[in-house]
Amino acid sequence: MPELRKDPIIGRWVIISTERGKRPHDFKKVEEPAENPAECPFCAGREDSTPPEILALRSQGKPNGPGWQVRVIPSISPFLKRDAELWRKGIGLFDLIGARGSHDVVIETPQHIANMADLDSSQIEAVFSAYIQRTKELEKDEAIKYVLIFKNYGYKAGGSKIRHSRSQIIATPVNLKRVKEELEGARRYYDYHERCIFCDIIRQELEDGRRVVLEEDGIVAITPFAPRFPFEVWILPKKHRPDFSRIDEEEKKNLAVVLKKILTKLKSLLNDPPYNYVFHTAPFRREHKGYWTTIEDDYHWHIEIIPRLTQVAGFEWGTGFYICPVPSEEAAKYLREEK
Amino acid sequence: MPELRKDPIIGRWVIISTERGKRPHDFKKVEEPAENPAECPFCAGREDSTPPEILALRSQGKPNGPGWQVRVIPSISPFLKRDAELWRKGIGLFDLIGARGSHDVVIETPQHIANMADLDSSQIEAVFSAYIQRTKELEKDEAIKYVLIFKNYGYKAGGSKIRHSRSQIIATPVNLKRVKEELEGARRYYDYHERCIFCDIIRQELEDGRRVVLEEDGIVAITPFAPRFPFEVWILPKKHRPDFSRIDEEEKKNLAVVLKKILTKLKSLLNDPPYNYVFHTAPFRREHKGYWTTIEDDYHWHIEIIPRLTQVAGFEWGTGFYICPVPSEEAAKYLREEK
Repeated sequence: MPELRKDPIIGRWVIISTERGKRPHDFKKVEEPAENPAECPFCAGREDSTPPEILALRSQGKPNGPGWQVRVIPSISPFLKRDAELWRKGIGLFDLIGARGSHDVVIETPQHIANMADLDSSQIEAVFSAYIQRTKELEKDEAIKYVLIFKNYGYKAGGSKIRHSRSQIIATPVNLKRVKEELEGARRYYDYHERCIFCDIIRQELEDGRRVVLEEDGIVAITPFAPRFPFEVWILPKKHRPDFSRIDEEEKKNLAVVLKKILTKLKSLLNDPPYNYVFHTAPFRREHKGYWTTIEDDYHWHIEIIPRLTQVAGFEWGTGFYICPVPSEEAAKYLREEK
Repeated sequence: MPELRKDPIIGRWVIISTERGKRPHDFKKVEEPAENPAECPFCAGREDSTPPEILALRSQGKPNGPGWQVRVIPSISPFLKRDAELWRKGIGLFDLIGARGSHDVVIETPQHIANMADLDSSQIEAVFSAYIQRTKELEKDEAIKYVLIFKNYGYKAGGSKIRHSRSQIIATPVNLKRVKEELEGARRYYDYHERCIFCDIIRQELEDGRRVVLEEDGIVAITPFAPRFPFEVWILPKKHRPDFSRIDEEEKKNLAVVLKKILTKLKSLLNDPPYNYVFHTAPFRREHKGYWTTIEDDYHWHIEIIPRLTQVAGFEWGTGFYICPVPSEEAAKYLREEK
């Protein structure tokens, strides 16, 4: 029988079809629009076809020339700008705020490779280093409340026709709703139990085992108990830490290995599907007028990966009610067995 | 300059591009997959190709034969069932519940017409009558908390390849997250102001005028101040009432006229785009152990319509952060001028 499951962090119910769940090969190959790699502006040697870089990891060469490993440039169509004024205004019962912030594009490799799954784990580690450096730089701007790191891989996942592997960093002057809900849910749990809900989830999932995709070197990958999408995967570090940007070198390295493994499993199991990943991390914690805006113990950073396999949703947008045709236990089993 | 706007009901920030907003003809025509109308199981005369009807508005003919105006059948792939047991269970920190409920399909016309915009307003009124009758029937089941009425028009909006105009009614044993957020937001506002937030929005929008698409016979159509999607439209009755199912005959008639006008404007302005609509109405208010589960004054039912014009979102899923490339004022202006 199908059942309704509740996400314990934000309290969302989802319908899980447990009886006639779909199998991986039930999902059709998602077609991508044609691209001409020769026109890719992100490949090494074509640095002059992008805005000047904000940051580059390079062992050789000059800024805005070849020789880089990872390169961060401003988005050519930024919706939030570093130099925008941070005005605030109320119009009757409506609130608005100036679009201060930033919108960067992280070019993850000098070569024309589309899927992050096909990068070496050392290359993925360098991408994480770029994320962390940029986040620390953005933290210096007191107007910035949150830094959102995410990837749109494939056209159906919001990517562009140019498939060169890259991700985005958006810095916002407000806390995002979904982030706030997660923080509030985690804090509610912490207030009562005096334990982190993510630490408890990791503990329970490792004991249970059915939703664990892999566990190695302090990193756990699970399919969430109440997934919104088939084959949704969360990657969580066992070490409790609110901010991604504070991880140590060892964790960064292990995380890159695990992310590569998970992306590779998704690619081979599901026919190279479009996907999104989002880093869930705490907002900047600054001492304001004597109190910290977020406390240390109640939030636990992690990565959520969503393959985009299902027909674009209809009423989900309006209702927050999801129907997932693959139980997490089955998704985890398939992913565990896949190389 | 772009700006961030906050939805006053649920507190979600959206980025609105005010400077280089897109115009209606910037959105490409969305292609629909081919269909064979001769194979449509929903047309009059083909009643035996669907499950037996639950409800039909008919002035002639017998059940499950022709002669009906609107016909309600169970979904052939229901995720929630009327006869499912409503068990509840906790597994460690996870909660789950049996999939009690129902999932109906409302066939909105005996003819093979795809877009509700092309139905007569009297036909749309009959569709509303079917919604109301079904809702009142479902309310008798104490296990049901909420009835969700929505439409997926077009393949990109989650519709099927068969384009015969229809909508869906899902009855759930839990309150949906998005509904709960809206109720909580509205109640928070009411607790302080002792006024309904929707009544205040209607008042402020009518005074301001820039986001009003039309106002007639006690019904107002506006583009919301903080839209998630370009050309999003809300239809609100001026009369305060929490439940759609309690509207009177006069309102039902006027509402049908307005919904037809709005759908017609969207169709002609935006090249017959895919869209979703969702009825936002209060959960069932039953007297449980001496108190009502929802009070009367703080919620105001309405319809939200979302044309599906933009490339499927990426990070929006993970963050609840939306970027809308058309300011509501411009969307309203285009829609006002369109026939």
